[in-house]
Amino acid sequence: MSSNVVLNLIIAEAALELVPGEISRHASVRNDARRRDLEPSRILLDRSIHHAAMLRLKEDYKRGRPDLVHLTLLSITSTPLYQQAGAKVYIHTRDDLVLEFKEQTRPPKSYFRFRDLMQQTLYEKPGSGLITFHAESVPRLLSRIGSDPAIGLSVQGNPMKLEDLAIQLVGAKNPAVLVGGFPKGHFTPETTKALEKLVRIDANALDAHVVAARLVYETEKAVGHRSSSS
Amino acid sequence: MSSNVVLNLIIAEAALELVPGEISRHASVRNDARRRDLEPSRILLDRSIHHAAMLRLKEDYKRGRPDLVHLTLLSITSTPLYQQAGAKVYIHTRDDLVLEFKEQTRPPKSYFRFRDLMQQTLYEKPGSGLITFHAESVPRLLSRIGSDPAIGLSVQGNPMKLEDLAIQLVGAKNPAVLVGGFPKGHFTPETTKALEKLVRIDANALDAHVVAARLVYETEKAVGHRSSSS
Repeated sequence: MSSNVVLNLIIAEAALELVPGEISRHASVRNDARRRDLEPSRILLDRSIHHAAMLRLKEDYKRGRPDLVHLTLLSITSTPLYQQAGAKVYIHTRDDLVLEFKEQTRPPKSYFRFRDLMQQTLYEKPGSGLITFHAESVPRLLSRIGSDPAIGLSVQGNPMKLEDLAIQLVGAKNPAVLVGGFPKGHFTPETTKALEKLVRIDANALDAHVVAARLVYETEKAVGHRSSSS
Repeated sequence: MSSNVVLNLIIAEAALELVPGEISRHASVRNDARRRDLEPSRILLDRSIHHAAMLRLKEDYKRGRPDLVHLTLLSITSTPLYQQAGAKVYIHTRDDLVLEFKEQTRPPKSYFRFRDLMQQTLYEKPGSGLITFHAESVPRLLSRIGSDPAIGLSVQGNPMKLEDLAIQLVGAKNPAVLVGGFPKGHFTPETTKALEKLVRIDANALDAHVVAARLVYETEKAVGHRSSSS
């Protein structure tokens, strides 16, 4: 772990993927691809455009929401903690692909540019640069980065005040927190088994970007308290 | 003020406008309009697309960022406070147009749908519905809603802990907070003069969506503390 990083943030099982082959010939996909002058295999699956085609996909309700992934990423990368290299961010997709962002890398704020970057990254699978690519599951990712502890945020978890969680994280050796990068549903059993615990931070089910924003903010406050009391 | 609303949030001088006539014949605008099968006068000014055309606009650095306005709006409307009708949100544009969102109205999370909704609203200027339209400056908006106090968040303000500001707001009669809806620069003197004070909540200059997310979160916590101590 780099000396500054106090938190690894993983947007897990993210609803981010290229259009799967099984629906590449559907009219909503073909029209979108033609309009953008790209092959269907090179465009992101997007429920707001490919809704009709997605109805035949398995677990369609958890898929095709690059907009949510973008919002969640920006809610992390726009913060002082991230910009001062205190947080590292990973996107793990439901297909077990991991996009690892080099510390302090700023993703595009424009959705169009983010979409184009994600399409290119998922297609070209770069081994180095500002975003590096790994084919790995959540357990393998956690093991590679040596996270300790790994905590998932979920409405299925035990209630805990976010302030208290942040203090625990800041006191830990190399903590990782997983936020679900999907609009509905829960982490898979494979993901859950790899975690030390699941924590619920609000009485309401919160969007991933709200969870991530609040987690980073409380982590900043916990870092500040630690610094001022030491 | 409706009985539940504890906070009026104004995204002020927002970088949201239709393409101004003076650049409607520029190639980047004409191409975009043709691709989307719309008149130039009906599309949103967007720096990520119309950059070359915008160089000839006055204060171009503060304009054409509907993506930032979208992010800021979602960072408010995705929260429990907003969803329980505890916050009301307004977008005030640099052209002195105000879009007022009916309590609990959820704007589209997809950027495409948001863009289309804003284009339609700015063009059609609806007098009623989920979004109502007023042509008014910040001073007139604050006077119409009877805000007390009206506070602006700005790096030019006096430093104050956000927790303390939130406690003040929750104890006030009908508070309004302004967050700048632009990527660079500061509130105009006209806006600043209409405010009780300017407050700076971080040592860093923060993006509007980060400011709004943190403000709503601290307001929720202040409301919770007030409820549990009364």
